[in-house]
Amino acid sequence: MDRYLVVSSDCHAGLPPEQYRAYLDPQYRDAFDVALPIQIELTQAAAKRFLVADINDDWRKGREDLLTGAWDHEQRLRVLDGDGVAAEVIFPDGITEMNMPPFGAGLSMPTENIAPELQWAGARSHNRWLAELCQMAPERHIGVAIVPALWDVEEAVREVEWARTNGLQGIMLPVQWGKLSPYHHPKYDPLWAACQDHEMVIHFHSGPAPIEDYFGKMDAPPEEREDLPGAMGIYISEVAFYLVRPLTFMMWGGVFERFPRLKVVLTEGTSIWVPEYLALLDQRYSNTHYSAKLGDYHSHLKMKPSEYFARNVAVGASCMPRREAELRHEIGIEQIMWGSDYPHPEGSWPYTPDQMHETFHGLPENEIAAMLGGNAVRFYGLDAEKLAPHVARIGPEKARFR
Amino acid sequence: MDRYLVVSSDCHAGLPPEQYRAYLDPQYRDAFDVALPIQIELTQAAAKRFLVADINDDWRKGREDLLTGAWDHEQRLRVLDGDGVAAEVIFPDGITEMNMPPFGAGLSMPTENIAPELQWAGARSHNRWLAELCQMAPERHIGVAIVPALWDVEEAVREVEWARTNGLQGIMLPVQWGKLSPYHHPKYDPLWAACQDHEMVIHFHSGPAPIEDYFGKMDAPPEEREDLPGAMGIYISEVAFYLVRPLTFMMWGGVFERFPRLKVVLTEGTSIWVPEYLALLDQRYSNTHYSAKLGDYHSHLKMKPSEYFARNVAVGASCMPRREAELRHEIGIEQIMWGSDYPHPEGSWPYTPDQMHETFHGLPENEIAAMLGGNAVRFYGLDAEKLAPHVARIGPEKARFR
Repeated sequence: MDRYLVVSSDCHAGLPPEQYRAYLDPQYRDAFDVALPIQIELTQAAAKRFLVADINDDWRKGREDLLTGAWDHEQRLRVLDGDGVAAEVIFPDGITEMNMPPFGAGLSMPTENIAPELQWAGARSHNRWLAELCQMAPERHIGVAIVPALWDVEEAVREVEWARTNGLQGIMLPVQWGKLSPYHHPKYDPLWAACQDHEMVIHFHSGPAPIEDYFGKMDAPPEEREDLPGAMGIYISEVAFYLVRPLTFMMWGGVFERFPRLKVVLTEGTSIWVPEYLALLDQRYSNTHYSAKLGDYHSHLKMKPSEYFARNVAVGASCMPRREAELRHEIGIEQIMWGSDYPHPEGSWPYTPDQMHETFHGLPENEIAAMLGGNAVRFYGLDAEKLAPHVARIGPEKARFR
Repeated sequence: MDRYLVVSSDCHAGLPPEQYRAYLDPQYRDAFDVALPIQIELTQAAAKRFLVADINDDWRKGREDLLTGAWDHEQRLRVLDGDGVAAEVIFPDGITEMNMPPFGAGLSMPTENIAPELQWAGARSHNRWLAELCQMAPERHIGVAIVPALWDVEEAVREVEWARTNGLQGIMLPVQWGKLSPYHHPKYDPLWAACQDHEMVIHFHSGPAPIEDYFGKMDAPPEEREDLPGAMGIYISEVAFYLVRPLTFMMWGGVFERFPRLKVVLTEGTSIWVPEYLALLDQRYSNTHYSAKLGDYHSHLKMKPSEYFARNVAVGASCMPRREAELRHEIGIEQIMWGSDYPHPEGSWPYTPDQMHETFHGLPENEIAAMLGGNAVRFYGLDAEKLAPHVARIGPEKARFR
């Protein structure tokens, strides 16, 4: 094979918001009609904080058709082919400010002030549509179901089973839990068991963070909003920590001890943090010299945190810069899964071939192969044979990277 | 000089709780009488979670007299002399489970469910007593006033001025802000101005973290408490992050840009995190390639975060293990200030000479001198001449470390 098999570990898809109506259980459609204009307004207001309009508009110009690949399957395949991507992992929230699932059931769930029942309904409407999308080319699309598990573990287990039956291959859980129970709580064990039994990969996707700390109240009327200096700098400095918190809780909570075949991915939080994070946890795990007074907090774990990490965890390394590729052995050469983040403006699309070259050129071929796709094939249990014709047709040529 | 000048950047002092009554403004003494038994009970309950009783009791056996140095000046000097410590920085909360200031005004302030007025009163009672203690040997004691500034910046400025007038040399601010304003908010500017003008060093001391996430509700009745697996492991893995958050907010908020002579210390959070933290912030500051869509979030800072850190920040490296000494150049040889953490059981006392030797032996003399005391002398503006007689009498001999 003279081309790389590429899997993007981070892509996004979502319907134009009004089209979710048809996928909602009928009893929630009245609420949907009331919520839709509010949601559109709030989403666009948030986007104004996080996107410079001029840059965003400029970036989109001339690419309007390909951006509709956020929901249109034909356009989506054009994008994947153009990027050289054989298969992709699909998260919600397509185009940043316009493709959120209903009732706040997207990347930043759980949303305060929304009834759990509605958010479940919103998640299900997205999952139904996503299952349809994935079935149009099942070997290329790894669909990730939205599961707002914090509110109801039994419901979450049912959704995992529905998702598996309908061809989805993973779930996304909320990064933040607010006043609800974090992920070391034993009440989540039935969920972990279901994911392990059905080989459903658990995903946490970067984005959520305590943004009201940074920006002030997001839902305050404009005249009460405080424009706090440095808010964006704080956000981009802290956001990876909040992505990693669920893993810290699962790790110490013994989840990987009780569910040794469970698989967890942390996506779009860079992979730079991995070496220092594992050094800290291993040091905390093994160094009891200064902490004897704290009692036995570690013997329920039979392995070191870094060993669970190597066995149970992968990193969705979206928009991966060269520096991360250079640190690949410290991070874990088997953990890194490249991602394009299409159709988000911080992603590599539409410059994927160039950025891929910049990041990986000159590295050993087998290591590039692992990071670009081999790790994802193994972690998700993909069928490389079925992907081979796509690779032969659109995969990036290995010679380019030498 | 054949001995090292040693400054402990982290010691604790506090009265037996009932003795704070005399230092309270009279109008709060009725509330104090009601609160005292509740506070004692809560503090001891919390200590049961964080201290293994057997180990703690065993550690104390035969050292009861020296432990009363938490409030008794004569015993305190015996301890400092025995440790070879010429001068010390004094935080609240002496013996872990029994010397908290009234109304929750200690290391873990602000305490939920306590009226701000009462916590201010509690802080002031401690500051008054601490000023008395420090005046018994002013060249050796660097007193840190408790200032619960989140509630009232004007009141905080008055307390800074009172503390300076009464011989204290720094203030301690809350590490967590709950629903109140974090430290990038411009409303704190008068406080920063007062600290800069009066040369009062600002301290954040490790300890606070979202412990209800880890352990479940701390004030729940025993039968409702959930014993969540791994809670302690999560706590010790995350606690340093929460210590560093105030600095992240001040840094991006431009506080060191507007107050170039302000000094901040982060104490007892290790110093291991420093290199990776500064690499992250500098990268976020300078790398606008992937983040152009976020707009201009950095040009209000004229220097890189690592440059502000070098100019404005020091690290109270309590119980410093050998590994931190080996990383001293990556961390910043001028930033590290050793500390003993007396009288806390995780500290070096009563084995300070041995632990000091283990951490520093074989390193260059000038670097040991900087970390053990020279950096603190410079950062706090101490009078080394006044300390010289103490050093000559009790300072550790340099020859021992070769």
